Amino acid sequence: MKNAESIGRDLSAVREKAPLVHNITNFVVMNVTANALLALGASPIMAHAAEELDELLGIVSALVLNIGTLDSCWIESMGQAAAAAGKRGVPIVLDPVGAGASRLRTETALALIQTQRPAILRANPSEIMALAGAAGATKGVDSTHRPDEAAEAARSLAKSLGCVVVASGATDFLTDGASDVRISGGTPLMPRITGMGCTSSALVGAFAAVAASPLDAATAGMAVMKVAAEMAAEKASGPGTLQVHFLDALHNLSQDDLVRRLKIACE
Amino acid sequence: MKNAESIGRDLSAVREKAPLVHNITNFVVMNVTANALLALGASPIMAHAAEELDELLGIVSALVLNIGTLDSCWIESMGQAAAAAGKRGVPIVLDPVGAGASRLRTETALALIQTQRPAILRANPSEIMALAGAAGATKGVDSTHRPDEAAEAARSLAKSLGCVVVASGATDFLTDGASDVRISGGTPLMPRITGMGCTSSALVGAFAAVAASPLDAATAGMAVMKVAAEMAAEKASGPGTLQVHFLDALHNLSQDDLVRRLKIACE
Amino acid sequence: MKNAESIGRDLSAVREKAPLVHNITNFVVMNVTANALLALGASPIMAHAAEELDELLGIVSALVLNIGTLDSCWIESMGQAAAAAGKRGVPIVLDPVGAGASRLRTETALALIQTQRPAILRANPSEIMALAGAAGATKGVDSTHRPDEAAEAARSLAKSLGCVVVASGATDFLTDGASDVRISGGTPLMPRITGMGCTSSALVGAFAAVAASPLDAATAGMAVMKVAAEMAAEKASGPGTLQVHFLDALHNLSQDDLVRRLKIACE
Repeated sequence: MKNAESIGRDLSAVREKAPLVHNITNFVVMNVTANALLALGASPIMAHAAEELDELLGIVSALVLNIGTLDSCWIESMGQAAAAAGKRGVPIVLDPVGAGASRLRTETALALIQTQRPAILRANPSEIMALAGAAGATKGVDSTHRPDEAAEAARSLAKSLGCVVVASGATDFLTDGASDVRISGGTPLMPRITGMGCTSSALVGAFAAVAASPLDAATAGMAVMKVAAEMAAEKASGPGTLQVHFLDALHNLSQDDLVRRLKIACE
Repeated sequence: MKNAESIGRDLSAVREKAPLVHNITNFVVMNVTANALLALGASPIMAHAAEELDELLGIVSALVLNIGTLDSCWIESMGQAAAAAGKRGVPIVLDPVGAGASRLRTETALALIQTQRPAILRANPSEIMALAGAAGATKGVDSTHRPDEAAEAARSLAKSLGCVVVASGATDFLTDGASDVRISGGTPLMPRITGMGCTSSALVGAFAAVAASPLDAATAGMAVMKVAAEMAAEKASGPGTLQVHFLDALHNLSQDDLVRRLKIACE
Repeated sequence: MKNAESIGRDLSAVREKAPLVHNITNFVVMNVTANALLALGASPIMAHAAEELDELLGIVSALVLNIGTLDSCWIESMGQAAAAAGKRGVPIVLDPVGAGASRLRTETALALIQTQRPAILRANPSEIMALAGAAGATKGVDSTHRPDEAAEAARSLAKSLGCVVVASGATDFLTDGASDVRISGGTPLMPRITGMGCTSSALVGAFAAVAASPLDAATAGMAVMKVAAEMAAEKASGPGTLQVHFLDALHNLSQDDLVRRLKIACE
């Protein structure tokens, strides 16, 4: 059963254990991602050099791969890191930014999945649908589909890949192929800040280091995003102040905030 | 005639159409640039991989090239993107960061201009003068000249290149070689935030996707910068809070704000 | 004698001269570093292309090297820049992020030191101890040791390298091998923002351009960090607002703030 109490316990575990989360992510969000992980209570590492990936994967508790500003060098790093993570049982969260917008992105995401099955695939509905081979009509890196439209694609991907799939949006849709979770809340301003999707992937990575299952980890990460964004929105007057208060909210978020604010439905 | 009303119409067009703006820019400002475009109402893409540039240039409405942290790989990407944009008629905004500070920067900017004529060249006065072959005395990436000193250089560049040239400063000077526009306002704190120049180039890119002419696009972009910065300065107590309130102001900026605050002179 | 008055004089010198500080640093903190240098009153350059390093090192007043997201290309750039700085007498500040966490990081830091002796080595205690060959047990890029534990390692490094060593933490420990300085203050929230260590290295770089000695520069940089963080903490409600108010505080920090707040002990 996933609810505010169970998510609160996972949040406490992140804060107590401060898991090292290794990120190979895009240039746009590196700073934001690191700050969000620190605000949550986790400890971020950003590193991509071939010479150190195997060594670093030996000391981290989760790996987050994000193809937002991919190129051949970074694709190679991500593949190496995925292989090293697989060898050591480190859970992988994959964020296939822009899958469907270019062949390179779709193929890179699929190749990473084939290198090593991720524990969790977190994407927007258009990316999920592109990866599932459904409607490839993606507009850039932002989504043109609602999460519910992607529900079938997500379930089918989750079953075929054997991983949890998260289609994020105004209402997030999470599935491991058997059980579904829906989380709503947040604020309509969230898509007006770059990298909120990438941030959610990183937080899911932190929870993957402590939660009982990938679906629990994904649920906790997405729930904390929604609740922190809602708390931040009450103090914000636009996307600039929202981003700042979002980090404060992540840091200050309590079990009580989760209980009062979380809107979650499990089937 | 460029005035608050015409700029307001272009701003509405950006918000309605949410044009995809492709940025190949420097590592320092990628996050800020993406957030400014989102706050304005546009949709940013950051991508530089050779394998996907041609494909992505087929779905975007403007290309912004910024050489702030250039190296041989990124120069190649920028050249490829410029060529693909030229082939498809996608307008290019070029920000020649640090032109004059090193031969590599001056030559890269000139080579990009030769690959494909930009619609708009947005730079600080020292960079404009360096590119125009005038006084090469540039101090780093910040400007040591006032926009007016660069007016002659800008007009001459605009005529020889056949593009709009923007020399930004306390009073921005814009010219297509025939008509000039001057925009003042903003706040003296703007140069105390990194990437405000880069941000203005990106916003000009968003307007290039919707405006009737490159001079209209440049005018709208620079005008919105000045007005949003002035609005933000009223709430800020230093460069940190200014940056945050600037994004809020970009998001909230109304036709009425333009009418009340815009200081523009056209000749 | 290092005290609020002498540090205030160095701060005034930075604001008057606006020294160009060349940074070859990691992707995570580039924006933050540039903004901190601007808020302080210095002028940042970020550049790493082989073709322009020698030229740029001819116009800058300090070089800050940070191996946070190192790879073979960036290592080569850092080596080139260090050599060019050495040739021209430009002081170098080295931030060996993650030394001890991977062989690549430890060896890269040592190789840079061998290429050209830095004026100042600024690191966390674990990194200092790793570099000194003492207890290699480093957890990621955050420190697991207190500055005092690293005092002996820092003194020994300072003597063997002939440079100033700064081990930063709740109380910073600075030494040139003969004299020690301790600075306390700040806020426990500082480690919850990414890149505060990197920021302090950059500010130390700005002071290295104006101060009478490397130890004076390191003292002024670390002192300003602590005082600005303390001022910011009074207005902050979490790490998001802290970061924003920290930049404001750097910009607004006066001689009087230093006199009232600085907690420094010299031996």
